[in-house]
Amino acid sequence: MAQVAIVMGSKSDWPTMQKAALMLRELGVSYQAKVVSAHRTPNLLVEFAESAAEQGVQVIIAGAGGAAHLPGMIAAHTHLPVFGCPVRSSQLNGLDSLLSIVQMPKGVAVGTLAIGEAGAANAGLLAAQVIALQEPKVRDAIIAFRKKQTDTVMKNQTLELDV
Amino acid sequence: MAQVAIVMGSKSDWPTMQKAALMLRELGVSYQAKVVSAHRTPNLLVEFAESAAEQGVQVIIAGAGGAAHLPGMIAAHTHLPVFGCPVRSSQLNGLDSLLSIVQMPKGVAVGTLAIGEAGAANAGLLAAQVIALQEPKVRDAIIAFRKKQTDTVMKNQTLELDV
Amino acid sequence: MAQVAIVMGSKSDWPTMQKAALMLRELGVSYQAKVVSAHRTPNLLVEFAESAAEQGVQVIIAGAGGAAHLPGMIAAHTHLPVFGCPVRSSQLNGLDSLLSIVQMPKGVAVGTLAIGEAGAANAGLLAAQVIALQEPKVRDAIIAFRKKQTDTVMKNQTLELDV
Amino acid sequence: MAQVAIVMGSKSDWPTMQKAALMLRELGVSYQAKVVSAHRTPNLLVEFAESAAEQGVQVIIAGAGGAAHLPGMIAAHTHLPVFGCPVRSSQLNGLDSLLSIVQMPKGVAVGTLAIGEAGAANAGLLAAQVIALQEPKVRDAIIAFRKKQTDTVMKNQTLELDV
Amino acid sequence: MAQVAIVMGSKSDWPTMQKAALMLRELGVSYQAKVVSAHRTPNLLVEFAESAAEQGVQVIIAGAGGAAHLPGMIAAHTHLPVFGCPVRSSQLNGLDSLLSIVQMPKGVAVGTLAIGEAGAANAGLLAAQVIALQEPKVRDAIIAFRKKQTDTVMKNQTLELDV
Amino acid sequence: MAQVAIVMGSKSDWPTMQKAALMLRELGVSYQAKVVSAHRTPNLLVEFAESAAEQGVQVIIAGAGGAAHLPGMIAAHTHLPVFGCPVRSSQLNGLDSLLSIVQMPKGVAVGTLAIGEAGAANAGLLAAQVIALQEPKVRDAIIAFRKKQTDTVMKNQTLELDV
Amino acid sequence: MAQVAIVMGSKSDWPTMQKAALMLRELGVSYQAKVVSAHRTPNLLVEFAESAAEQGVQVIIAGAGGAAHLPGMIAAHTHLPVFGCPVRSSQLNGLDSLLSIVQMPKGVAVGTLAIGEAGAANAGLLAAQVIALQEPKVRDAIIAFRKKQTDTVMKNQTLELDV
Amino acid sequence: MAQVAIVMGSKSDWPTMQKAALMLRELGVSYQAKVVSAHRTPNLLVEFAESAAEQGVQVIIAGAGGAAHLPGMIAAHTHLPVFGCPVRSSQLNGLDSLLSIVQMPKGVAVGTLAIGEAGAANAGLLAAQVIALQEPKVRDAIIAFRKKQTDTVMKNQTLELDV
Repeated sequence: MAQVAIVMGSKSDWPTMQKAALMLRELGVSYQAKVVSAHRTPNLLVEFAESAAEQGVQVIIAGAGGAAHLPGMIAAHTHLPVFGCPVRSSQLNGLDSLLSIVQMPKGVAVGTLAIGEAGAANAGLLAAQVIALQEPKVRDAIIAFRKKQTDTVMKNQTLELDV
Repeated sequence: MAQVAIVMGSKSDWPTMQKAALMLRELGVSYQAKVVSAHRTPNLLVEFAESAAEQGVQVIIAGAGGAAHLPGMIAAHTHLPVFGCPVRSSQLNGLDSLLSIVQMPKGVAVGTLAIGEAGAANAGLLAAQVIALQEPKVRDAIIAFRKKQTDTVMKNQTLELDV
Repeated sequence: MAQVAIVMGSKSDWPTMQKAALMLRELGVSYQAKVVSAHRTPNLLVEFAESAAEQGVQVIIAGAGGAAHLPGMIAAHTHLPVFGCPVRSSQLNGLDSLLSIVQMPKGVAVGTLAIGEAGAANAGLLAAQVIALQEPKVRDAIIAFRKKQTDTVMKNQTLELDV
Repeated sequence: MAQVAIVMGSKSDWPTMQKAALMLRELGVSYQAKVVSAHRTPNLLVEFAESAAEQGVQVIIAGAGGAAHLPGMIAAHTHLPVFGCPVRSSQLNGLDSLLSIVQMPKGVAVGTLAIGEAGAANAGLLAAQVIALQEPKVRDAIIAFRKKQTDTVMKNQTLELDV
Repeated sequence: MAQVAIVMGSKSDWPTMQKAALMLRELGVSYQAKVVSAHRTPNLLVEFAESAAEQGVQVIIAGAGGAAHLPGMIAAHTHLPVFGCPVRSSQLNGLDSLLSIVQMPKGVAVGTLAIGEAGAANAGLLAAQVIALQEPKVRDAIIAFRKKQTDTVMKNQTLELDV
Repeated sequence: MAQVAIVMGSKSDWPTMQKAALMLRELGVSYQAKVVSAHRTPNLLVEFAESAAEQGVQVIIAGAGGAAHLPGMIAAHTHLPVFGCPVRSSQLNGLDSLLSIVQMPKGVAVGTLAIGEAGAANAGLLAAQVIALQEPKVRDAIIAFRKKQTDTVMKNQTLELDV
Repeated sequence: MAQVAIVMGSKSDWPTMQKAALMLRELGVSYQAKVVSAHRTPNLLVEFAESAAEQGVQVIIAGAGGAAHLPGMIAAHTHLPVFGCPVRSSQLNGLDSLLSIVQMPKGVAVGTLAIGEAGAANAGLLAAQVIALQEPKVRDAIIAFRKKQTDTVMKNQTLELDV
Repeated sequence: MAQVAIVMGSKSDWPTMQKAALMLRELGVSYQAKVVSAHRTPNLLVEFAESAAEQGVQVIIAGAGGAAHLPGMIAAHTHLPVFGCPVRSSQLNGLDSLLSIVQMPKGVAVGTLAIGEAGAANAGLLAAQVIALQEPKVRDAIIAFRKKQTDTVMKNQTLELDV
């Protein structure tokens, strides 16, 4: 079974949410991805969230836009850590998605990442950081990823005026 | 069975949400009120929403604050009309509650009222307006309520300078 | 006479508001659509709103953008339930439309849907949910629509990485 | 008949709106003040707005809060200049009032002032500035008021540290 | 001398601000338009604003974007009525322009119109409404413009589904 | 060494951040709490973050307000999972804190909780959920906490009208 | 003559703006403070700003609230560096003040600090940082102030649970 | 060594930040530009900021977007004046960048400029205004630049209607 489950409210969220998948793949963490809509497949949501732990999932990443209820509702049905990704909405630029995900009441937690692709990639990274607490290989992959990232910035210092 | 069910995410929402109850009582519509938390009692939510129609409920009013998932999740589990009340949150003045409730995706609808007590009272009024389509007595009560309201404004025209 | 009246502040709102019409058509609810501008045809607004009930209209859907006064002003002139659709404005992305529609004072209610096309479609759905309280055929159509929607999500689970 | 009419959506707006009255009194412009609710007395609104010009009113000041439709709806029924005052709302600090008043569509104008008491006072001042185009006495009063205001700032220059 | 002066902070505001000019032309009100930058030509601003009244100008329309100081600073230097137009800014959609113009302190007033072209056109209309208090011909032109506008809405009622 | 480190930008954040400590204590997770200011003790920040992993810390909770740089900067110096708590700021209600914490660029992740005390408590809960992946005792404590929370809602259903 | 001039739009801004004065005093930089209102004393503004440089002022700190035009207008009349302090407004919490000050167009710059007292204190600090480029004594005072600040955080690490 | 250092969080910020460089070049101030990421190269940040003063840098300009921690963190490691440029973010239009930079706590100051290119250019101008306190040649260049800017506005007064 996959270590991380990535779920999203709509297939149209996949271009954003696949950044989480790509990050996990890069860091050597197994994942599965599926569409689970809080509003259109509420029973699937319950079934998915309640069975995730016993299926071996360790972390759940959930992305949604607008009145984004998916991450919080999944968190309500599991004791696994849940990370939420606000997908950019077409009207309010994702501010609605962000507030719908992050402003959870005391007692049910969602660790929320940035709006859009950067946040989705970071959800994958954060999930890997959790997995890394138990898997030295993943921890080493994260350290290597971060070092490569630092090196890339260091090597690209040429800045030339356009005019 | 009551014609209108009023649910809210927390007992602390009742001072706001009872304005819906008071309006329904004034207009002669029966109601029941209970706490159903999307995050803390998610199974109760499903059970409540899925059985409401067969128990004779005709309209559901749902109030919640912050990452307010209750109205939308109830709407996902019923074909009854659902009206949502954004309860004022302590941090963002209810803007988070409003956006979490109103920005529903296509296919699951929540008719959203104003933030706070005015919105809760109006949820009661709107539910009564729906009931009134079948009950002339309620329709007459609404017309009378609105007339009284107009008269009150008309009779209170004295405006005196404070200084 | 049509069961649902769809009005909007400007012909330019029709591409958005026709999503309400399409939803009603799909659910077997009759409708009529017209332009009624709160600011440019205020007398037509009064005439329309005051005569709607006796012409057999049961629910009114009103869409407008910017300083969107149409839904609230119609609600002020009728006891029928009114659902408001904030049309996306060119400057503030519809936040102005949303707040102008939803923040009604106690005593005159507008059930407000999401900004833009999703909200317009849901206004049609919510109006049908109200009609369905009296028409089992519409209720069945809604249940079927929701089931189809669920099935569509369930059948579209293939998510492939772009890279 | 009064030169300026001050109207407001609710008697609770008077503590704010009387600042307009006080300014007009200070500048020697006659006014009348009354409550006209767009939502609770919509017919009074039409009657008031349509008869104002022939009753000798030259400028209308309209204040309202929340989904503030009063200024725009009055402007829709008259060719007189209308100035709008966003009254501070209890939930969103008057941002809803401001956007509901200022974002009027092309063809019906409302000159909008600041949220709250400063804006109400300035609505009185602006109305007087319009009246002053025809009445030299009012123009002189404005110039004197502005001079006094400047002098007050100039004379209060002592700034002492609190600590 | 022109009855209305239209000033703007930058030549790039002219595509927006010319809507004010077009409206004034349509209503038979004379105008002049020029660039006066609060920040880049502050002395020109003072000179312009202090001499406007004696040159016969009756109303000033001022448009600016971003930290939009032009309308308020002009109002600080004249007793003529000043109407402010928030030009859409490239970053914050004109919300910065709007707040910079409308939130004037007590004692110096700017009647503010909507963000962008609709607001600029309405500034022209509102200026004409002020001029109309003294010129019956302009009043008649406004009434005719408003009637034509109403007729246009009434005649364009055909709404056809796109699908 | 403690399993969870709680750091905050200022001692004034402790009334908020102690909610995280209380939650961890309730769930049987060891913690240490200290003040580490990104701006006033930047070297302490580096030292703390770089040594946390080897000192046995597994999760870091960081709270800050305003231009809240602490969580992101700590995340930049460690491969441990970091959860961020936006402390309510006195001016913008914590919206600045929230955006400063959550909008991290790709490559350095902070799982962000709600503004204020609810978010701090949930940071403790989320940290425990991560620890629980390795410690069945903590997992059982979480399940028990959640069950108790559900029971509390279920048992407090009496809602009485105030009037 | 003072090295730094502190000006503010209203005497009511002094409780906020004196934090700049206190910081300058602590760092050994001379200052003068006065009220200069952009809107109520526009000529004083011009006179002050145009003469500041030749009177020996090196840095200007300007604070204002609402439609805060003072910092930008002063910057338009001088080549000295100008730092702006958004004073908290009673309606929009200083968001209007902030945007009015910071969103200056290209060509006239205002270095803007945080809303309220923290920003005012930092304006004093930043002004001192500029003066310090020429005065080693001020530079040493800043380094000492910063060190003391660091030490204060380091020494106050006791955090005790309230419960 | 250069008088002004321009740093930015990512090479993608350079199209914006080079406006600062161009302004400095125009005003005869020497500069160096490099990428220093608060999150991806945190040690480089410390090294850069701590050594800047002794390398002869007098002013630091720092630009970043989203959770923009660079300007504030640099300010935490130096006593030189730091000016911050909020780079427009793809999601929230730079409002997140602005608040992350400007809302610094008391004791560490960042003088913040407008979002985007205008702000970057003005950061260059403001840095030059600081340098000019010691270099009359730069002061003269600024006065000339400002005069040219004024002249450009004065010479471009032809405004022709598009229609």
